[in-house]
Amino acid sequence: MTKSNYVKIFDTTLRDGEQSPGATMTSAEKLEVARSLARMGVDIIEAGFPAASPDDLEAVRRIAAEVGCQPPGRNDARVPIITGLARANKSDIDKAWEAVREAEKPRIHTFLATSPIHMKHKLKMDPEEVIQRVSEMVAYARSLCADVEFSPEDAGRSDPEFLYVVLGEAIKAGATTLNIPDTVGYTTPDEFYNLIDGIIKNTPGMHDGITVSVHCHDDLGLATANTLAGIRAGARQAEVTINGIGERAGNTSLEEVVMTLKTRHPVFNLETGIDTTQIARVSKQVSNYTGMVVQPNKAIVGANAFAHEAGIHQDGMLKHNLTYEIMRPEDVGVNQTKLVLGKHSGRHALRSRLAEMGHSLDESELDKAFARFKELADRKKVITDADLEALIADEFYRPRDVYYLEGLQVSCGTLGMPTATVRLRGPDRAEHVHASMGTGPVDATYKAIDAIVNTPCKLLEFNIHAITEGIDALGEVTVRIQGTNGHHTMDAQKEVEFSRVYGGHGADTDIIVASAKAYINALNKLIIAQTEGLQPATNDFGVMLG
Amino acid sequence: MTKSNYVKIFDTTLRDGEQSPGATMTSAEKLEVARSLARMGVDIIEAGFPAASPDDLEAVRRIAAEVGCQPPGRNDARVPIITGLARANKSDIDKAWEAVREAEKPRIHTFLATSPIHMKHKLKMDPEEVIQRVSEMVAYARSLCADVEFSPEDAGRSDPEFLYVVLGEAIKAGATTLNIPDTVGYTTPDEFYNLIDGIIKNTPGMHDGITVSVHCHDDLGLATANTLAGIRAGARQAEVTINGIGERAGNTSLEEVVMTLKTRHPVFNLETGIDTTQIARVSKQVSNYTGMVVQPNKAIVGANAFAHEAGIHQDGMLKHNLTYEIMRPEDVGVNQTKLVLGKHSGRHALRSRLAEMGHSLDESELDKAFARFKELADRKKVITDADLEALIADEFYRPRDVYYLEGLQVSCGTLGMPTATVRLRGPDRAEHVHASMGTGPVDATYKAIDAIVNTPCKLLEFNIHAITEGIDALGEVTVRIQGTNGHHTMDAQKEVEFSRVYGGHGADTDIIVASAKAYINALNKLIIAQTEGLQPATNDFGVMLG
Repeated sequence: MTKSNYVKIFDTTLRDGEQSPGATMTSAEKLEVARSLARMGVDIIEAGFPAASPDDLEAVRRIAAEVGCQPPGRNDARVPIITGLARANKSDIDKAWEAVREAEKPRIHTFLATSPIHMKHKLKMDPEEVIQRVSEMVAYARSLCADVEFSPEDAGRSDPEFLYVVLGEAIKAGATTLNIPDTVGYTTPDEFYNLIDGIIKNTPGMHDGITVSVHCHDDLGLATANTLAGIRAGARQAEVTINGIGERAGNTSLEEVVMTLKTRHPVFNLETGIDTTQIARVSKQVSNYTGMVVQPNKAIVGANAFAHEAGIHQDGMLKHNLTYEIMRPEDVGVNQTKLVLGKHSGRHALRSRLAEMGHSLDESELDKAFARFKELADRKKVITDADLEALIADEFYRPRDVYYLEGLQVSCGTLGMPTATVRLRGPDRAEHVHASMGTGPVDATYKAIDAIVNTPCKLLEFNIHAITEGIDALGEVTVRIQGTNGHHTMDAQKEVEFSRVYGGHGADTDIIVASAKAYINALNKLIIAQTEGLQPATNDFGVMLG
Repeated sequence: MTKSNYVKIFDTTLRDGEQSPGATMTSAEKLEVARSLARMGVDIIEAGFPAASPDDLEAVRRIAAEVGCQPPGRNDARVPIITGLARANKSDIDKAWEAVREAEKPRIHTFLATSPIHMKHKLKMDPEEVIQRVSEMVAYARSLCADVEFSPEDAGRSDPEFLYVVLGEAIKAGATTLNIPDTVGYTTPDEFYNLIDGIIKNTPGMHDGITVSVHCHDDLGLATANTLAGIRAGARQAEVTINGIGERAGNTSLEEVVMTLKTRHPVFNLETGIDTTQIARVSKQVSNYTGMVVQPNKAIVGANAFAHEAGIHQDGMLKHNLTYEIMRPEDVGVNQTKLVLGKHSGRHALRSRLAEMGHSLDESELDKAFARFKELADRKKVITDADLEALIADEFYRPRDVYYLEGLQVSCGTLGMPTATVRLRGPDRAEHVHASMGTGPVDATYKAIDAIVNTPCKLLEFNIHAITEGIDALGEVTVRIQGTNGHHTMDAQKEVEFSRVYGGHGADTDIIVASAKAYINALNKLIIAQTEGLQPATNDFGVMLG
């Protein structure tokens, strides 16, 4: 297999990450994240699972066309490989190819389970059939696209001898990347080292043109260690996500693998193409779009990860930074200038700041952003990058408005009669007004919205946090709702669609207004999915590759 | 060293965990957490750092006397070892002994740095002096207490040959546990395995009565893997915290180590004394008290860790649980009955439920809790364990009230003039009323509180989440504030005290009321610390043991 000292970073935030409950992103959000990933130097972007729905296919296609190609007027830019996932069948592979073919460097990534438990209970195929199917489908993918990746799902619990045979067939059929997923986050670093080492040594036909890849899950807290163990054994591609989001306990964190290789360079002697100074910003962006909060004690990107810095400044006791510091905050972009704009900043300043942050808005979008900016600057002295990210996310990366918040008036407090009056513009362009009492101001607001929207759902989670420091901070609310099946009877497939989880977010200096926006945002996604049937159930495709 | 197949779990949530920015707990909260840790079967509780302040000493002493002793009328209960941390000097060791001596099984844990960078820049001692000091201070601790643990701080970056000498001296002087901290979270699993293996094989005087211990930090995301590597090499004590809280990126997570040993029992063939079904509850309790949120994709205890369960129920596609499940949610207490009490539940039902949850309230406390419970049951149909935990935390585990919220009235919405009127009872028992406008309802409320309290501080973080599912959920707010030095001049030590970070929380069905309570809670801690000077700066004691 590939013997270079370069480890390719394969980011699956938009596929395995976005697949986790509540982390659903809009197409516009996915495109923005893909732009950020390309800018930070990711080698391969897994942009989605095109067979999941026409919407998913279209999102991957746009990323292939816009992020996977040279920018207008250039031909020398470093462009990432764009890939889409496909089950090992022609229909999925056709859709994946349709989605990625416009990219300068397209890849098809196909998979089939190889563990006894998955073959028996999920696939209902015997080992011979699995080998046959892998051989046929990898060959079919290769007939469409020169770059084909194959993953034996649940490899961590597969018989190694059987894996060698399957992977040997995949090589014969034309796969150039062999990705080994620990789908259920079950292995220990030693076991995973041995698995990868065994595959490299024993797979028939293994040659220098093949890249061995690792894809780990964090169910036991070992994803990063397993990924590094696989790399030590010779893997030269790591499949990761920003903030480690993903099914269940999530995937391996991009930031942990990249920063370990960098910080402990003398131990590993390996390189990646990642510009680590962009880590903090992309982490924040993904957290904002998905509503998946990052805990303060998360390695590298948690709010406390570099918190001892403050201590050093305060007490002057520590005479030498390295006493307690193995990475510098600026290495991951934590200490970059945050104060950017104020009340007197003009339209031009806003445009250039947004462009530096990677948001290219057209004139009418810029008008809207500038209006929101001025409104915010009236209330808040200093506008930081984080404020701008929240504002942009709120204004531009939302689903089409079915309902739109026109007005809200709330009174609450210890007197115990929280009341909200809501005015919404509906799909019929008509205005709807309703007042409700609730157990609190958010409950009252949500009850009033429910009375107008009349779409049964369950509020699973509700989070507010201050985007920025200080008491005049902009608050961002993220909610997760789940559709419920009012009184209708429906078939099982329909039932699954209706019970899908949707996330929503809203930002405002008034957290009750932000709460209303977040709820309406999630409801809009739910309504679009239910009425247009564009978003099928995640669960239909299981916890693929873990 | 000890060759048993039992791994002792040493929990340092109350020392290394509580030391992280914003995680400060009150003495009552610490006592409750210690009770939970004892109930779940932790072998050793590191209850605090007694030399830090008289308050810290008193908190450790109460835990030693109440959690470290047989319950009244019994003599057969399993009681944990209680330890307190001490720098390697007589004064610290005396205070640690004073704090733990009432426990049935007291331990003194002393430490001194052994890495070149720490010896040179922090201790300003040469290696010979370090050896001498360790020998003297371990012997001194041993003259007070039969159970002495010694830690060479920053062992991960120390010269192994020097470590062997230092640890040999510690054994000679009477230490029975040798704890090896990777203070800065710098090592890889292989390096850490070799470090522990080398120590076991090369430390002079190593014998069966010695327990080797590991203490890892998660700066590179490798804490769990490093801890397990140390255990594989022969360590039989793991130092961990609930949810992995701790300095910077935190300590090793108790739940990850314990569940890996359990889930992969055939690989490790090791046991712990932990009742894993209590993990989810203790995780929630620590998160509530410290305000350190747990991200949804956190291994074992994150909200999504077992989220595929729902999927299985919904689509019926997965024919076999083990297809994607390596642990059962009930193994960690996730699926335990949550619906417990309703509007018609009586005082007796509440008392027994609280007792089952480990809260033993006296009659007057029960009266208060019952009043709060009835008030909540009027607004919310079903009262869950999580509601009760929030209510108890809010009512009983707060610092002494300096200011108390008597009344709050708020109006807000899209009209843009959020206004709050606050009525507080102050330290003089007098009522203070103030109305303020703000950028949102929380800002208006906090401005009104500031106008009354007049204690300069900075709001660092603000979080709200719904404790329970459903739209009528109880909301819990956690804030972190940092004291700022108004206009006074003060010496450096004073400056550090004033800039310490305090967390506060409040629960209410009205999130604006909860926000007010959380802020007042944090302010009360800040005011008590500043006026009574009881809480010295964390930074004075650095990032001990990492």
